Amino acid sequence: MNNPDIDIAKLQDGLQGRNPRKILRAALENFSSIAISFSGAEDVVLIDMALKIDRNIQVFTLDTGRLHPETYHFLEEVRKHYQIELDVLTPDRQILDEMVKRKGLFSFYVDGHQECCGIRKVEPLRRKLATLDAWITGQRRDQSLDTRQELPEVQQDTAFSTPDHALIKFNPLAGWSSAQVWDYIEAWQAPYNALHRQGYVSIGCEPCTRAVLPNQHERAGRWWWEDANKKECGLHAGNVPEQGDATG
Amino acid sequence: MNNPDIDIAKLQDGLQGRNPRKILRAALENFSSIAISFSGAEDVVLIDMALKIDRNIQVFTLDTGRLHPETYHFLEEVRKHYQIELDVLTPDRQILDEMVKRKGLFSFYVDGHQECCGIRKVEPLRRKLATLDAWITGQRRDQSLDTRQELPEVQQDTAFSTPDHALIKFNPLAGWSSAQVWDYIEAWQAPYNALHRQGYVSIGCEPCTRAVLPNQHERAGRWWWEDANKKECGLHAGNVPEQGDATG
Amino acid sequence: MNNPDIDIAKLQDGLQGRNPRKILRAALENFSSIAISFSGAEDVVLIDMALKIDRNIQVFTLDTGRLHPETYHFLEEVRKHYQIELDVLTPDRQILDEMVKRKGLFSFYVDGHQECCGIRKVEPLRRKLATLDAWITGQRRDQSLDTRQELPEVQQDTAFSTPDHALIKFNPLAGWSSAQVWDYIEAWQAPYNALHRQGYVSIGCEPCTRAVLPNQHERAGRWWWEDANKKECGLHAGNVPEQGDATG
Amino acid sequence: MNNPDIDIAKLQDGLQGRNPRKILRAALENFSSIAISFSGAEDVVLIDMALKIDRNIQVFTLDTGRLHPETYHFLEEVRKHYQIELDVLTPDRQILDEMVKRKGLFSFYVDGHQECCGIRKVEPLRRKLATLDAWITGQRRDQSLDTRQELPEVQQDTAFSTPDHALIKFNPLAGWSSAQVWDYIEAWQAPYNALHRQGYVSIGCEPCTRAVLPNQHERAGRWWWEDANKKECGLHAGNVPEQGDATG
Repeated sequence: MNNPDIDIAKLQDGLQGRNPRKILRAALENFSSIAISFSGAEDVVLIDMALKIDRNIQVFTLDTGRLHPETYHFLEEVRKHYQIELDVLTPDRQILDEMVKRKGLFSFYVDGHQECCGIRKVEPLRRKLATLDAWITGQRRDQSLDTRQELPEVQQDTAFSTPDHALIKFNPLAGWSSAQVWDYIEAWQAPYNALHRQGYVSIGCEPCTRAVLPNQHERAGRWWWEDANKKECGLHAGNVPEQGDATG
Repeated sequence: MNNPDIDIAKLQDGLQGRNPRKILRAALENFSSIAISFSGAEDVVLIDMALKIDRNIQVFTLDTGRLHPETYHFLEEVRKHYQIELDVLTPDRQILDEMVKRKGLFSFYVDGHQECCGIRKVEPLRRKLATLDAWITGQRRDQSLDTRQELPEVQQDTAFSTPDHALIKFNPLAGWSSAQVWDYIEAWQAPYNALHRQGYVSIGCEPCTRAVLPNQHERAGRWWWEDANKKECGLHAGNVPEQGDATG
Repeated sequence: MNNPDIDIAKLQDGLQGRNPRKILRAALENFSSIAISFSGAEDVVLIDMALKIDRNIQVFTLDTGRLHPETYHFLEEVRKHYQIELDVLTPDRQILDEMVKRKGLFSFYVDGHQECCGIRKVEPLRRKLATLDAWITGQRRDQSLDTRQELPEVQQDTAFSTPDHALIKFNPLAGWSSAQVWDYIEAWQAPYNALHRQGYVSIGCEPCTRAVLPNQHERAGRWWWEDANKKECGLHAGNVPEQGDATG
Repeated sequence: MNNPDIDIAKLQDGLQGRNPRKILRAALENFSSIAISFSGAEDVVLIDMALKIDRNIQVFTLDTGRLHPETYHFLEEVRKHYQIELDVLTPDRQILDEMVKRKGLFSFYVDGHQECCGIRKVEPLRRKLATLDAWITGQRRDQSLDTRQELPEVQQDTAFSTPDHALIKFNPLAGWSSAQVWDYIEAWQAPYNALHRQGYVSIGCEPCTRAVLPNQHERAGRWWWEDANKKECGLHAGNVPEQGDATG
């Protein structure tokens, strides 16, 4: 079944504060053209839970071409562990090669990560999302003090919806803490990125990710040379207030 | 001044819940033959605070011969940063070489860390403590759910006192959380072990220390092949109930 | 000037055993639509030499999306050090994503590196070479006992020429030893990949490259799970006898 | 049998240019109070060969307290692989602690490695050698262009002999190349230090050893901040011309 006319506000009322399985079940019951966006530890929890509801759930991930070697191993381990088909999406070579020829391979340190994320992550994501009615993310409220405090369990995706195509975003782990995610991984012996054994918490591209110190917030390990309130790669641009463009 | 007849219970009454500087000041006012035992992040906080009270505070550390290369760099950095004389104590070669010849270099994985810690840490420490009336440690109550929950600010050291020689132990950070320690380090830009940038929290000898996962308790990175309630190296044997010998 | 009708046999007669600068000069004098293919230590020597002959020499490199983080830094360092425009070529996402969806991210360990190299290296290279009349490589005879023993200084490129378009390949370092390459790098303080400080000699993609032991041949660090005589990635398929297809 | 009155010149005449097994056999036949000094890859070859001649050959190694973690694992692996008793000798704590208190943990970078090697290596070695009539080393002529070119197969040890006690030194691998050592290790699948997989060739203490670049001489990885002609740690002081003291 496919249901673009669903009443999001009503669905959110029913899902607010519910447990992740309940939210996932609602997502999968209301949408058939739906997929899990997979990159980090949280998303493995989603995959683990979702497969128990629907063995055919779609899973995709964004391969920017600049991930850590450990991350490629992690993606493969998840693919094999859960025996899923993993849709690995890479950037369009023409816009990528043009940027790199002009600005080199580390321009993000100079003028910010938005342009590079726009080409390596957002453009492939937009291409994928155009084929879906809803997607499922591992976002949590406690991930970012600046941008994710108000995250609902389900929302219209303002960044990737178009006039012709409404897109819904589910955040089943919105109410979970990082500790709950890791308790789940430990309890179910789910695969995790080997970098988590080296002080990494939130993991993105290799040049834009670093380990954090004990007790440091996980977002301190991402785009650390930029202001805290810009730390979204564009996948969840709607989290940043008054940021009009989807490449945020 | 030197005061072995001090009333510890009364001192503890006065220091309970007080801030670390207050406790340090009391320690240094009541004892002249006193030293800071230095190994980890917490101890740098103590050194930083104590030097502002008494520029001549003694500092010693235990070099077991099996520390991480990063730890040796950290010790040297602290020595230079604070311009202190650092007393680095190594094991007695005769008892060490005998054990290694008999059992090899990794016997602790087979029959526990007590024997090795006894030779590489406790024996040199006992030698040093015999020259002191009091020592200052970086222990915190939240470091160990099993062994450090009842830690007082000041206590008679039951492990290292002898019939002829009472030894007092001060724990100025007993009431601090790990987060407070790290806030202090960040605020004062104090030196820290580079391993903290690789997922390590509590750091001991190289073969007996590992990085922890996000949200994992710091003691999970120490002697992980043994039961949780044995995780004291013998420096603070009095923390382990009904453990009679000082090599605990 | 552009000279596709050049007599290769005669040119080779004149260049055999000559020094690299002489060969480079001949290459640049005979062809204007020519470029250096850059990836390893040898190629920096070529860039260093060529820029002294022609400041506008074209340089391109193949970014497979699976290079080591250190290699991306090296590419950028070369770009900045020599102030050149570096053409970084990435794979076509449609054929790449299709393969990865079907076979995962490490299929080369199962059925050989040819398919993956074909998509990540050879296809982008073919696209680039179609725009050139000649290219310059860092191949040396001593790199491979099996495939590069007969390497001439200049040759028709049988792998990438087409009926409509003859392509010439220059190998100015054909007669140099590895030691000569490194002497040059040391003497001119040319940039090199930081992996060379970790036991790596010949460096390709991260999952298909490893460090070698002391005295081990450099090709032992490439595609080590395959037979020695297949160790060409397809860029120099003509080196492999009786290998008809250009994706070899 | 024990033979301090042996004619070394005659023995050397007979052993010059002979293969290592022949030299080892002569050593073990002429001396019963003899031991192999073990640290690097070469010494494993000696142990492997010697055990086939005499299952009870003594083996000792110097644990300076500053070895790489990988080296401790290697020592243990050799101990277990060959089922030998390994005599691991550590420094005297009184002279060591005094030096470190006075000069810190990295004084060798400031005023040279002689003092530190003297305390951490030479003093324990001298103690051991006083109990032996002969020792066996893995020295090779090609290890050092400056200090080991004239190395004989057998020699009086001028550094560690005393007026009362002549000490003989055998160098069974004097004539072997590095490549021969590694061929042997590969052929017999002998254990080797994991650091050899990270670009390290000659391995000593952690702060005084580094990986070398491709084609760089192995001694470039030792005490690189000092002149080439001083690169002996004192174990083989006799190699350095006109260096009178045994701490060379």
